[in-house]
Parts: sequence; C-alpha cells; structure tokens
Amino acid sequence: MDKQEKAEKTEKAKMDKLDKKIAKADKQKVARTLASVAKATGMDDGADTGYSDLERRLQLAEESSGKLSAVWQPSIDSLLRFRPGMRVADMDGSAHPGFDGTKEDAERFIELSSHQIAFYQELLYANGVDGGKRRMLLVLQGMDASGKGGIVRHVFRQGNPMGISYHGFGKPTEEEKAHDYLWRIRKELPQNGWIKIFDRSHYEDIVMPHVYGTYPEDVWRARYDEVNDFENALIDDGCSVIKIFLVVSRDCQKKHFLGRLDDPHKYWKFDPSDLDARARWDDYMDAWQEVFEKTSTRRAPWYLVPADHRWYSRAVVSELLRVGLRDMGLNWPPAHFDMAEARRRLEEEEDEQ
Amino acid sequence: MDKQEKAEKTEKAKMDKLDKKIAKADKQKVARTLASVAKATGMDDGADTGYSDLERRLQLAEESSGKLSAVWQPSIDSLLRFRPGMRVADMDGSAHPGFDGTKEDAERFIELSSHQIAFYQELLYANGVDGGKRRMLLVLQGMDASGKGGIVRHVFRQGNPMGISYHGFGKPTEEEKAHDYLWRIRKELPQNGWIKIFDRSHYEDIVMPHVYGTYPEDVWRARYDEVNDFENALIDDGCSVIKIFLVVSRDCQKKHFLGRLDDPHKYWKFDPSDLDARARWDDYMDAWQEVFEKTSTRRAPWYLVPADHRWYSRAVVSELLRVGLRDMGLNWPPAHFDMAEARRRLEEEEDEQ
Repeated sequence: MDKQEKAEKTEKAKMDKLDKKIAKADKQKVARTLASVAKATGMDDGADTGYSDLERRLQLAEESSGKLSAVWQPSIDSLLRFRPGMRVADMDGSAHPGFDGTKEDAERFIELSSHQIAFYQELLYANGVDGGKRRMLLVLQGMDASGKGGIVRHVFRQGNPMGISYHGFGKPTEEEKAHDYLWRIRKELPQNGWIKIFDRSHYEDIVMPHVYGTYPEDVWRARYDEVNDFENALIDDGCSVIKIFLVVSRDCQKKHFLGRLDDPHKYWKFDPSDLDARARWDDYMDAWQEVFEKTSTRRAPWYLVPADHRWYSRAVVSELLRVGLRDMGLNWPPAHFDMAEARRRLEEEEDEQ
Repeated sequence: MDKQEKAEKTEKAKMDKLDKKIAKADKQKVARTLASVAKATGMDDGADTGYSDLERRLQLAEESSGKLSAVWQPSIDSLLRFRPGMRVADMDGSAHPGFDGTKEDAERFIELSSHQIAFYQELLYANGVDGGKRRMLLVLQGMDASGKGGIVRHVFRQGNPMGISYHGFGKPTEEEKAHDYLWRIRKELPQNGWIKIFDRSHYEDIVMPHVYGTYPEDVWRARYDEVNDFENALIDDGCSVIKIFLVVSRDCQKKHFLGRLDDPHKYWKFDPSDLDARARWDDYMDAWQEVFEKTSTRRAPWYLVPADHRWYSRAVVSELLRVGLRDMGLNWPPAHFDMAEARRRLEEEEDEQ
C-alpha cells in the first residue's frame, strides 16, 4: 500500500468513526424529542407510566428553569460539601447521592442546566466589560482518570470561549520553580467577567511534597494558611471560588487506564508515571484528607464528588457552577451614554449622505 | 415595592426570558427532528417536494461527513479568498455566495460541521500533548456589529475550552504602548495543540494609524512587511493562520446599533465611540483594502466574508476552520511507553494487595 493509499484509508476510518458518532447523537436526540412530543400531544399523559419522582422533577425543570435545583433531593450542599468527619477514603466513587436517576436523566439535566450557565456567563461577561470585578475560579482536582477533562467539555457545552478559559497545571517548569509556588497560579487567575477553570492547582504544591517528601514538612504545612489567605483575598476582590475533588474508585481508575492502553485514540492520555501515583493511592488520600480539613472554609468550601459515573459528576459540577453564577445576583449593566444623542446621530445620518 | 420584591421580580423576568429561549430552541429541534423522521420512515420520500440541490447535498453530508465540503458550490476558496481586483467597498454584505439555502439549512450545516471541528480539535490537542508543534491562529476582523462575538459562540459550539482560547484586543494599555506593537500579540499566540481566536489583532495597528494619522505614514506602512514576516515565521513554526474579514453593510450595522439601544440586555455592547468609527466608514474601507492587497499571501490569505446574514458568515467560518484543521493531516499520537509493561503492572496489582 503506498503512502497516498494509506493516508486515504486513515482518513476514511476517521470519517467513518465520526459518522457513527453523529448518527448516535442524532438517534438519541430523535428518541428524546419523540418522547417529549408524545407527552406534549397527549399521546402519553404520563399518568400510568410509573414516572419516578426524579422524572417528574425533571419535567418541572423543563417547564421552568427556576426549578432546576429542586431536581436534587436532598441538596448537593448537604451531601457533598466537606464537613468535619467526612473521610474521602471511605467515600464510594460509584454512588450518586441526591440524584436518583439514570445516565439519560443526568444528560437531560445537564442539557437544561447548560443553557442557564450560558445565560449567566454572558451576564457575567457583560458586567466585566462594564467594569465589574465579579469573576469565577473553578478548581478541579482528582486522581488521574477521574474525569477532569470530560467535565470541562460537557459542563461548558453551551459556553462561549469569549469568557471561559482553561488552564492545566503540570509539573513546574524551570521558570516556574524559580518563583514562589503561587506565582504561576496568579498569572492564570480569571480576568474580570471571566470564568477560569484550573485543572489541578496550587493544592498540588501541598499534596505532592506531602506524599513524596520533596520539601521539609514545615514548608508545605505553612501553605495551608497561605492558600486560605490567598483565596480569601481573591474572594474579597470579587472572585468566587469553587473547589471540586472528583472521587474516583481505585477499580474505576484501573478500568480507565486499561481503556487507554486498548485504544490508540487514547494513548496520548496515558503516562507511565500515572502508575507510580496509583501505587501511592493511600498516601494521596491521606494528603488530600488533610487538605480538605485545613482548607475547606465557609467562603471557599471543598465539594467531594463521586466520579465513577461520569454522568453524575458532570451533573453535580454543572449544578454547582450554575448556582454559583446565579447567586452572584448580577443584572444587565445600565447604559452609560446619552441614548437620545446616540439615536439622533444614527438617525440623522441619512441627511448627511 | 421593597428591595427584596424588586430582586425577586428581576429574577423572575430573567427566568421567564430564559424559559422562552429554551422553549424556542426545543421547538426548532422538534421541527427539525420530525422532518428527518418523516424522511427516514418514508412518510415523505422527498421525491415530489422539489428539494433544491443544496438540500440534497446537505442530506449527503449528513450521511457522510466526508461530503461536507461539497455543500458549497462553488467553493468558498474560489469565492471569498482575496484576489487582486476584489474590492471590499463593492461587496454586498447581504449576499451568500456558494450557499444557496436558508437560515435553517445553514444551521444544519454548522451543526454537522461543529462535530467534525470538535473531533479535529481533540486530535490537535492530543498532538500538542505529545510534543507536536501544530496549532492554529484564527484572526477575526470586521467593523463594529459585524458579528465577531457571535461567530465565536456558534462555530465552537461543540468545542472544548481545553484547547480553545479567545483574546480580544482593545485600545492598547499604557503597558502595551511601552512595547512594540507585536509584543501584546506575541504574548497571546496559541500554545502547541491549541486554537487561538483573535478578536481584532495586529492589523488594528496598521488600520488605525492609517485612518487617524496617529503615526507617521512610513511607520505604519513598514508594518505590512513586518506582519508578513511575522506570520511567515509563525507558519514555519507549525502555526496555521486563517484571516477573516467580516463584511457588514452600513445599513446592517445601523440596524444592529439601534438594536443595542433598544434592548437593555445589549447596552453593554454599545460604545458611543463606535459612532465615530462609523462616521469614517469609507476611510476604514480604504485602509482595509490596502491591508488585503499587501498582506493576503499564499500561506496566510484573507477571506472577505459577507456578514449581514449571520447564518451565512458563521457557516463560512465553520467551513474554513474545519478544512484548515482537516488539512493538517494529523494522526493520533503513538504510544511512547512499554505497553506490555504498563499492562503487567496494572494487572499484577491484585497479588500485591
């Protein structure tokens, strides 16, 4: 097979895969739409279908977006917000507390929620243009293969790159190491009106030395107070902070790692050093437990989110983000110009020409 | 009405508006889906509906994404790529060359195209993680209200913030003015594996002094060669460059400006200084014409895209982006690790425990 043929074959394989993906997405859309048409036209009045409570709540949320939060029972805050006595090592990664539904239900919820997120995001951006200081920092943490990347794609599906920015923090570079550990964090903080997603964060600078002993204990221990002060100052300045730890079970991580080894489209996601971290699982959990105890504050709490079921963790993050934006209580900026004058200039033009 | 009541009323108005928006989107989705179900089930075989050529080509594209480019006849490249003799001032902003369809057709096209863009974007990102240097710079220019912002939201609707970054260039700050004009541009260039969207760009540093005489002529004229060299070096280094000028008619801009004055949700988009630029319309067109003549090169051409119909300009930009990504000819990165060893380590764990 010559090079040209080979390239064509690869291209064809890519296209076929994509076609299947699109067909699948369309099929789901059709099924969902037909179901809602049936309901709307009375072909199915829902009376004897044995809808679950969640199903009914989702329907209400579809009718009025103000009812989205009621989908969760009890609330995410009461279930997942870190409180003393909660132990990450004891959590069940495959649980889905507060959401007694299926993957399809979660998908419906995320779809509804994402429209609201897009609405609030534009409102936040508009306020930023207007000189407002409100902005948001979303900190995503979790072991490898806990789904941090997928969350970003799914939760922001209606989002606008104009106002949303992502940054992943890796192993510090030589330049970064030549500064204090918050230097590279500060450089990436959100602008006014923007939402910034941190994939890993300053918390790695506590957890890594804790697990590997790369810094003296008094150095990294002092960082608990430092990051609390750092986040407090941010919040004082108008930046909301949401901190999320995705709790994946060890078994589920193994499944995802094997998936990466089996699929040539996923080799790039695998790094053998991930296995070293995996081997130190319990040490990591201990280090994170201490992080939650020392840095989950009233104003910047940690949320511990079971993440074996991606649909669940995505729905949770979508809800936390939506509520966080909603609770900013923003309004559309007023006009800071002479409207009559602007209108006159526009309408008088025709005489000039 | 006390403050609490007022806040609740505002909140309710916001929610009602959002509900209407969602309902409208759903209605369109239902209509589209029902139509395609009708076709698929033979309730409508399409034989006597007088489908246009475009309709047939869109159907083919739905069946195989490899046929998306065939939707355009003739090609975008032959129609919109700047060539000597083309005059921006003579272009019709309300035209939609190469796409003989409706807003709904364009919407269908963008939906299909956006899935492919998402696919290629992940491929590009994966190559970046793997150490590849390919990346993309999308330069968006156009008069105020030419739809630059909306393009970003619509074209990247399936996109992932992890790999897409937007930057808008405004009036230079004091710090920016203390450096050469390309300093702030260089700071915002895409990382390897990323797509960067420039909303305005280094071209403002030629057009503005040309229109307003803020720099001596020899200074800004020298910049034509400088930006060509700058872009050439970028391309040599692996960065694709797509330059788009959105051609909005003067009447259409007026309509949008009045819309911004009429809608309290849009006040933030209006700046009275936009009227000053509008008053110099012909000067701007002359300045841009010279930009196209001097900087539309074989490797970094300008595309002049009619933009009175947003659906058209969005479809064009979607196609240019998709083809630009496709033509990078990227493959999934190979595994750079010992796969058997990785698998062994994962599977032997159980004995250790």
